[in-house]
Amino acid sequence: MGGDHAPHEIVAGAVHAVRERGLQVVLVGPPRILYEALADHDATNEIPIVRAEEFLAMDEGALASLRRPRSSIAIACHLVRRGDASAVVSAGSTAGIVATGRLRLKPQQGVLRPAIAVALPTRPHPTLLVDAGANADAKPEMLVQFAHLGTAYAELAHGLAQPKVGLLTIGAEAEKGNKLVKRAHELLQNAPGLRFTGNVEGHDLLTGAVDVITSDGFTGNVALKTMEGAVRYAFHQLGEAISESPAARVGAFLQRSRIRELRHRLDAEAHGGAVLLGLNGTVVIAHGSSRAPGVSAACALAADLSSGGIVTRVGDRIAALPRSHRLW
Amino acid sequence: MGGDHAPHEIVAGAVHAVRERGLQVVLVGPPRILYEALADHDATNEIPIVRAEEFLAMDEGALASLRRPRSSIAIACHLVRRGDASAVVSAGSTAGIVATGRLRLKPQQGVLRPAIAVALPTRPHPTLLVDAGANADAKPEMLVQFAHLGTAYAELAHGLAQPKVGLLTIGAEAEKGNKLVKRAHELLQNAPGLRFTGNVEGHDLLTGAVDVITSDGFTGNVALKTMEGAVRYAFHQLGEAISESPAARVGAFLQRSRIRELRHRLDAEAHGGAVLLGLNGTVVIAHGSSRAPGVSAACALAADLSSGGIVTRVGDRIAALPRSHRLW
Repeated sequence: MGGDHAPHEIVAGAVHAVRERGLQVVLVGPPRILYEALADHDATNEIPIVRAEEFLAMDEGALASLRRPRSSIAIACHLVRRGDASAVVSAGSTAGIVATGRLRLKPQQGVLRPAIAVALPTRPHPTLLVDAGANADAKPEMLVQFAHLGTAYAELAHGLAQPKVGLLTIGAEAEKGNKLVKRAHELLQNAPGLRFTGNVEGHDLLTGAVDVITSDGFTGNVALKTMEGAVRYAFHQLGEAISESPAARVGAFLQRSRIRELRHRLDAEAHGGAVLLGLNGTVVIAHGSSRAPGVSAACALAADLSSGGIVTRVGDRIAALPRSHRLW
Repeated sequence: MGGDHAPHEIVAGAVHAVRERGLQVVLVGPPRILYEALADHDATNEIPIVRAEEFLAMDEGALASLRRPRSSIAIACHLVRRGDASAVVSAGSTAGIVATGRLRLKPQQGVLRPAIAVALPTRPHPTLLVDAGANADAKPEMLVQFAHLGTAYAELAHGLAQPKVGLLTIGAEAEKGNKLVKRAHELLQNAPGLRFTGNVEGHDLLTGAVDVITSDGFTGNVALKTMEGAVRYAFHQLGEAISESPAARVGAFLQRSRIRELRHRLDAEAHGGAVLLGLNGTVVIAHGSSRAPGVSAACALAADLSSGGIVTRVGDRIAALPRSHRLW
């Protein structure tokens, strides 16, 4: 029931995931609404519905998850906790998902705070941004944990050996940043088990300079949305520039498919969503503006992660750190 | 002497500003180096040199400005203070320029901290981002002052009536953000003399949703550099996509000039630089990667601002606020 285009695009994405990807999907929400949406696809026999009459609105935050213990996201987390589902996918309010996930699935042993990991579209492999929005007010020790969670995820999900970790701040030198980041820099420099290569800046998000970028959730979220907005802006401007002259229009026609491909790759939808790390259970957060293809991609990511036990194994890294390696 | 391409591109920019824009420029730095650079342009008779044997390196921060009281940026500020120059332009270390400016030119009456204003390339008029990097650790009251400084600048420099002010954070609702931003939101809602329209997010930087965006300098700087990096990335990817097929290459040829135009407009250099608001004197900070055209544009901006007394009048707004309107 979450997302700007719920329930129709969410349901369409679920149908796609079942029919095109061979996944098993359960929908959670008000049965009548979901049944009707499924009927539009003649899919009422293919996808079971689990009842949840309430849901969190897109503008609701963490508190709503306490006020509405029977919301669709709460019931979905409950299914995972009981073992009746392998993962949760939601395009709903990020704050609501994070709060509900913490409440229902609990953080893994030793994890101070679950964090949102987003794979940025760098090549040959994505750069992972952690935390992209779960913890607006973080402590320096949390940034070290985010680095550990991101390192484990990059190893397990992206197959990297000894991923490079960078700290998001406003200059390359150790003393550049706010108090939080300066203290985190000191901790990261002395953190065993991490390959910390130093500070990175905003323009390093898409250069592949490091494999994992650690950040508090406020800065990470502002950076992520700024990146998305700037890429969208550049393509929009390009579209306008192209349509201004006949010669340019012919040119645009000739290269249209390349641009479409590229745009698709950079599109937030194609990423398949963000992953909540550090919880006892797999939660994938699809972009709030997701349409069916984005929802289907998020389901595929969730299935991949849960079949490999990736999220659990990522969090295990925190519990498995020798006491001497813990800085919290 | 500041900037990645100093002294040659800086000197070339100064020569351009004098010859093509009719400005009067003084160069500050080691005379022999500057004389030789001027000689390359046969311009030794056109541009006077003021001696400063020391200068701050690009990786030096605020402390260096105390260690080297006779640095080129310090001498340049001194010229403005004495009235021998109307404005300072530098492409050097931002932290060094801000610290030296505060020390030499002093904040205007009532100003808690000078802030960096950057005009983002929105249309029909730019959106102003304040603070883009002067104050990594800000207090909520400072964000209100940045809103006042930005409002006055948008009125005086961009000719806007009652500019709309947004607060940079991670969600549209009042309670979205970190502690700093949540408190700033409360203050801004009750701030007389400001047209505060609420929160904005990273993707609003380039949509023109508001005229002034207030932010702490850490978040503002991360967002600004992320935006620059993402635009550069989008064009780079586009260039690669275009060069992959012959038809696309023909297409690219036909629209090349449009793309070049657009790229130029989005290029950080074209903005002419950031402005330090709240000081007793005009200081323009050119991009560290500026080449001659960017330096020349920064000189033009500095000349425009100082001839209109814009920076002084912007800061006067703080001193002129009735006591009841001050929230600090």
